[in-house]
Amino acid sequence: MSDQKKSKGLEEAPLMQKITSLCKRRGFIFQSSEIYGGLKSAYDYGPLGVELKRNIMAQWWKSMVHERDDIVGLDASIIMSPKVWQASGHVSGFSDPLVDCKTCKTRFRADKAPVVEVGSEVEYRASGKTIKGVAAKPYVCPECGSPDLSDERDFNLLFTTNLGPVKNEDSTCYLRPETAQAMFVNFLNVQSTYRMKPPFGIAQQGKSFRNEITVEHFIFRSCEFEQMEMEFFTPPEEARAWLDYWKDERFNWYVNLGCKKEHLRLRAHEDDELAHYADGCYDIEYLYPWGWDELEGIANRTDYDLRKHQEASKKKLTYFDPQKINPETGKPGHHYLPYVIEPAAGATRAVLMFLLDAYEEEPPSEGRKEGRVVLRLHPKLAPIKVAVMPLVKKDDWLTGTAQDIIKTFRKNSVNAFYDEKDAIGRRYARQDEAGTPFCITVDGQTKEDGTVTLRYRDDMRQERIKIEDALSIVNAKLLE
Amino acid sequence: MSDQKKSKGLEEAPLMQKITSLCKRRGFIFQSSEIYGGLKSAYDYGPLGVELKRNIMAQWWKSMVHERDDIVGLDASIIMSPKVWQASGHVSGFSDPLVDCKTCKTRFRADKAPVVEVGSEVEYRASGKTIKGVAAKPYVCPECGSPDLSDERDFNLLFTTNLGPVKNEDSTCYLRPETAQAMFVNFLNVQSTYRMKPPFGIAQQGKSFRNEITVEHFIFRSCEFEQMEMEFFTPPEEARAWLDYWKDERFNWYVNLGCKKEHLRLRAHEDDELAHYADGCYDIEYLYPWGWDELEGIANRTDYDLRKHQEASKKKLTYFDPQKINPETGKPGHHYLPYVIEPAAGATRAVLMFLLDAYEEEPPSEGRKEGRVVLRLHPKLAPIKVAVMPLVKKDDWLTGTAQDIIKTFRKNSVNAFYDEKDAIGRRYARQDEAGTPFCITVDGQTKEDGTVTLRYRDDMRQERIKIEDALSIVNAKLLE
Repeated sequence: MSDQKKSKGLEEAPLMQKITSLCKRRGFIFQSSEIYGGLKSAYDYGPLGVELKRNIMAQWWKSMVHERDDIVGLDASIIMSPKVWQASGHVSGFSDPLVDCKTCKTRFRADKAPVVEVGSEVEYRASGKTIKGVAAKPYVCPECGSPDLSDERDFNLLFTTNLGPVKNEDSTCYLRPETAQAMFVNFLNVQSTYRMKPPFGIAQQGKSFRNEITVEHFIFRSCEFEQMEMEFFTPPEEARAWLDYWKDERFNWYVNLGCKKEHLRLRAHEDDELAHYADGCYDIEYLYPWGWDELEGIANRTDYDLRKHQEASKKKLTYFDPQKINPETGKPGHHYLPYVIEPAAGATRAVLMFLLDAYEEEPPSEGRKEGRVVLRLHPKLAPIKVAVMPLVKKDDWLTGTAQDIIKTFRKNSVNAFYDEKDAIGRRYARQDEAGTPFCITVDGQTKEDGTVTLRYRDDMRQERIKIEDALSIVNAKLLE
Repeated sequence: MSDQKKSKGLEEAPLMQKITSLCKRRGFIFQSSEIYGGLKSAYDYGPLGVELKRNIMAQWWKSMVHERDDIVGLDASIIMSPKVWQASGHVSGFSDPLVDCKTCKTRFRADKAPVVEVGSEVEYRASGKTIKGVAAKPYVCPECGSPDLSDERDFNLLFTTNLGPVKNEDSTCYLRPETAQAMFVNFLNVQSTYRMKPPFGIAQQGKSFRNEITVEHFIFRSCEFEQMEMEFFTPPEEARAWLDYWKDERFNWYVNLGCKKEHLRLRAHEDDELAHYADGCYDIEYLYPWGWDELEGIANRTDYDLRKHQEASKKKLTYFDPQKINPETGKPGHHYLPYVIEPAAGATRAVLMFLLDAYEEEPPSEGRKEGRVVLRLHPKLAPIKVAVMPLVKKDDWLTGTAQDIIKTFRKNSVNAFYDEKDAIGRRYARQDEAGTPFCITVDGQTKEDGTVTLRYRDDMRQERIKIEDALSIVNAKLLE
């Protein structure tokens, strides 16, 4: 990790603590199996969190699949044939270098450990004492700082299980570590049944699993996570132009959903960073509390994957273009393996990013003696779009009218929340923390003139509107 | 399996074959990892199938979560703490009785094998000959009919894997065999953060995994499947009334989404069928090609699960109701474990059911020399809501106008499909097979008067409508 990445490290604890605490307190994200002491890096999405995640994933699907003629969807099984992962190289090569600390017994990833100079003197703690030692490797234990370490061993990140009643090598299969391979093995099925012609894409969302040793930063890196990946199959000569196109397209997707532009950057991979199969790759990075780090990767995977699967399966995976000139014969009609541009986003990671980016604490101000916590989520992402509240709950006319307004929203698929508990100020504060962009209050004046109070989350402005205008005002913001 | 269930068995092959073939041909469902010869009972949802499944699941979420004040959502991790499955009884008791046939080496489930009388004479085939034998058990081999069988052994259905770099008992964990347990272990977290008061429910959708030996009927029973479950926590004395309520509510959900009422029935479990923890259970059954079989179960699970988790975790999982009279003291203020009513539906199974129910072959008729295959899916479930087509693709004005119409639909989140390939009749036929309820054709007359042809899938009626009315006409059917 570069210094730049670490530069904001000091601020990490407070903001991450606040987010984690808000997530638990308000029902965004809980530790999984909490009553049993939890499970390493596993998280459950509560009532607000599941809506936020669903909204992010729905926006991605809308922009990637529904709004385009050239991309279609796929939803493949998590347990695929083990031959897929043999061909893709994951069975033999998808591993991390692990090291054991002989002093404190911690097991850690060599490539994530603190860097030192080989031969330099280091200090570390053991049995309550400070000890001096000499670094034999270019890193020390991340826990105690000891240079007394085992050799590196490769640890494969695939989760294995067994299909069928007998546990042996023949029945071994894997939980997918990425959704991408399903698009490659289904390439011809999708292309032919849907009569697609490159350039075209296949998009998929779903869970993936990696047996990570180093899990970190709440939901940023966990063993079970959710992906949003799209494989865009193009004629080889168009691949670089499409890489360019997709890096911008994906960058703008985050910006259009309200992410602050100054918290995002595009970073081209250096040559020595590139995966062996890639011809160019960009990371969309976000300025997390611990510094710039990955949010999404957009890679030119060339024809590496299709070629590997063609070799292993002995099935021809080329596309036949009757118009395209065959370079060998000089005549129209060419079979070729398309190149692939892959924008690979993490839904889980996007949840964390949007929460961090939307979080704000406002101090008390003139006319408001209490400060507030507000999640400035884009209305399209907000778990609840509008809260509808009777000013007092003992008045049947007020509660009934509020329920009628709720029904109108629900009929039109706008997620509305009814709240009658506590004073109105506390109810507004709860909705601010939940990121709800609009609150509608039914009060005494409603009886007289059929108007309600519309209160805006962002500037706390309030205005009287007619009940019958409520849906179109809220909807206008959602369709913007 | 009862005779009644088998009664329609003869018709199974043709319709199931037609559905499987349509699914593959049109990109609803592919065999997983097909280029590698497939994987036992694993399936991938193609471009149309993923939309159908998403629509079914979205309708469920809308009716269960968004349209109600008393149910909230959850999305828990697939790999939970192993202690959850120890407490729930799955580790010790979630098993099938397996038997090996000594004649043909088939391994099968004793409870699914053909029933015979113990001591009766049976005939079976071995090495090409017909052999007579005597039944030593109340069943014979489902493959060859042999009575020469091993003893029954319990085979646990949990998929196991290992979390972390060391494979041993301590690192063993399980892929969830149901989503339900996550709602029980998160009961208090959700209740308190969202301030819910029983009766209230927690709903979840997601993948579950069971290492089934007998997989059958295409996607009906597979090892990896997708669930839609809701746990409704109620005061114990209200549980039976809520079971009644939910069985009707869930039955009507299918009917309202277009499933033929005569293909559905509610069946109360006999006492000897009931799970040991259940106080009453209904199956919603569908008339599949192989007979009546399960679509969804609605059970009164009593306080069995919460009690088990309370005992195992040593965490109090009772709800405190300050108004409720404590039966021991006779005063207000009572801690109690709620009862749970669980409507448990299969998303994967619902996909198959809706496809079967919607499938129709129409013979040629007067004025139409070719028959057609049509999927009469409810517009809310149809993968594509509207196809927009220029009559001819060489006319830029027609194609441009069609694209403009598409844009209007997409802006309003109506999934629209652009098609310019082949003659218009073939394009209509393709949309009929995909279940698309509306087609809009832009033609020469559009240039003159701004009208387009709206063609209805179900009766093939065509009418001229104004371009600007297209969205509201289609939307009206979707909101019905």
